[in-house]
Amino acid sequence: MDGALRILVTGGTIDKVHDWSAEALVLDAGAGSAVPGLLAAGRCQVAAVQVVLFKDSLEMDDADRAAIAAAVRAAPELRLVITHGTGTMGMTARYLDGLELGKTVVLTGAMRPASVLGSDAAFNLGGALAAARVLAPGVWGVMNGRVFPAADLEKNTATGRFDG
Amino acid sequence: MDGALRILVTGGTIDKVHDWSAEALVLDAGAGSAVPGLLAAGRCQVAAVQVVLFKDSLEMDDADRAAIAAAVRAAPELRLVITHGTGTMGMTARYLDGLELGKTVVLTGAMRPASVLGSDAAFNLGGALAAARVLAPGVWGVMNGRVFPAADLEKNTATGRFDG
Amino acid sequence: MDGALRILVTGGTIDKVHDWSAEALVLDAGAGSAVPGLLAAGRCQVAAVQVVLFKDSLEMDDADRAAIAAAVRAAPELRLVITHGTGTMGMTARYLDGLELGKTVVLTGAMRPASVLGSDAAFNLGGALAAARVLAPGVWGVMNGRVFPAADLEKNTATGRFDG
Amino acid sequence: MDGALRILVTGGTIDKVHDWSAEALVLDAGAGSAVPGLLAAGRCQVAAVQVVLFKDSLEMDDADRAAIAAAVRAAPELRLVITHGTGTMGMTARYLDGLELGKTVVLTGAMRPASVLGSDAAFNLGGALAAARVLAPGVWGVMNGRVFPAADLEKNTATGRFDG
Repeated sequence: MDGALRILVTGGTIDKVHDWSAEALVLDAGAGSAVPGLLAAGRCQVAAVQVVLFKDSLEMDDADRAAIAAAVRAAPELRLVITHGTGTMGMTARYLDGLELGKTVVLTGAMRPASVLGSDAAFNLGGALAAARVLAPGVWGVMNGRVFPAADLEKNTATGRFDG
Repeated sequence: MDGALRILVTGGTIDKVHDWSAEALVLDAGAGSAVPGLLAAGRCQVAAVQVVLFKDSLEMDDADRAAIAAAVRAAPELRLVITHGTGTMGMTARYLDGLELGKTVVLTGAMRPASVLGSDAAFNLGGALAAARVLAPGVWGVMNGRVFPAADLEKNTATGRFDG
Repeated sequence: MDGALRILVTGGTIDKVHDWSAEALVLDAGAGSAVPGLLAAGRCQVAAVQVVLFKDSLEMDDADRAAIAAAVRAAPELRLVITHGTGTMGMTARYLDGLELGKTVVLTGAMRPASVLGSDAAFNLGGALAAARVLAPGVWGVMNGRVFPAADLEKNTATGRFDG
Repeated sequence: MDGALRILVTGGTIDKVHDWSAEALVLDAGAGSAVPGLLAAGRCQVAAVQVVLFKDSLEMDDADRAAIAAAVRAAPELRLVITHGTGTMGMTARYLDGLELGKTVVLTGAMRPASVLGSDAAFNLGGALAAARVLAPGVWGVMNGRVFPAADLEKNTATGRFDG
């Protein structure tokens, strides 16, 4: 259950950091992704972390989704985790699902940035990685300790959870 | 994939907190388990968290393991996560596996307490919960983003990881 | 050096928390101020914490500053710390200084909210409290481990520090 | 009020880190002191941080205290902060006070390591630095938001605070 696995980073809330100058949470490509630090804390040794995009998912367009699909196809690994903004995570999941890529793909992200106390980032990333080890080929989402097929992956904006 | 799930707390490093008086990390039953706080941060709504024991796993004896097995049997849920010290996690897993309980049981824990910065607690607990949603009946362990059958669950004391 | 001391909370970045719905850092009166939690962590027993305002300092007006001055006057204590947004901290300091209140008043705040990892909140609040114990009557600011008379208290927006 | 200042690191609880192998909090010279990271978070630019010792203060001996005194004397700065274990902080303060070094020396430390959530490290270090800017020559301690002359600096082991 432990063949090679690749994490594709696409941005989203999980990677936002506080910018004192803007007095806001922003995606800062210079600061980089939180994913390597989360893996180190989790004592998880994954062969590859690849930054495909670094965008708020509400700003993703068709070309961005095509780039994600291309990265899934190009990966030598059969199991992939994609970190993604929560706003359009379901849309990307269903897009990838329609392409029948023949791999196990698990999307995850966070409602609160990894840089903020009380974040759900480590919890969700750990969940996605464990699920990616055992799920069948297809496209899935892991949020809040739950596992969703692509068709049911949708943020409930009233509760801030993925309720399926 | 989202039927009811129960978490059984047994103690271990994941739940140690700093005691300024002892100037050490200790299991403090008064402070309680870190698990509810980890679930809240993970935005995870699990029906039941049950404290069965609150012990360093190196101090667990046969009666303790029997109490864990009894709690698994008594639970109305078919999917359980057990938080456990890393020292004898594998031993407890194999003990439970031998009892053929007919449920999906996933053990997890942490190498660094949830109360310490850079802990692996949330990462591992999130992993165990997601895996418990999808794994077949049997006894498993989730650590470091990996999933192990009971037979292969063992801490590598040289690396501080579960390497299978 | 340890007579009674009062902390007046007025809001500012120090008290911002992540709102997952707004996907932003906000002042949330319902969540309350970070100050009591910072004092608890600092093992500091201060008699009184009083919320006077809960505003971004860029939105403070003359009536707000008059309310702060009234709270300083009304306090039975002779030593006060005021938590305040950094944007107009200097302006409020000089306003209070002009009123010749006859008390030791120390303003402080944070460039990064207490709710974000790597915050300067505890560092600055601890500094303000210690300084308030020993400074002469007058109006002062403590930021970045430095102590400024009101006349010299000004954020350098290029460096994000108070450089005097 | 902002002339050059030096921080002398001597170890103590403030610098303890979790060692997963020992399953304990330890002083790890390889990991280094927490002080530079605390200063960075506090946005504090201090010219010099110097590690004199890296010991639990209960293990300090006369030679260690002589080394601290020598470092105070050798420093070109007139204002020094010394991070120190809480167990014998008062003893070191009174030893230094007896030497009449002619400088402003402020001792501080932590009851909970900087590496543990809810630490008092940043609060105390920020307090010591601000106090060191304004206190007269002599030896002082800053803990829990309070300022103590050397004669009154003593941990109350029942409360975990310095109560004077």
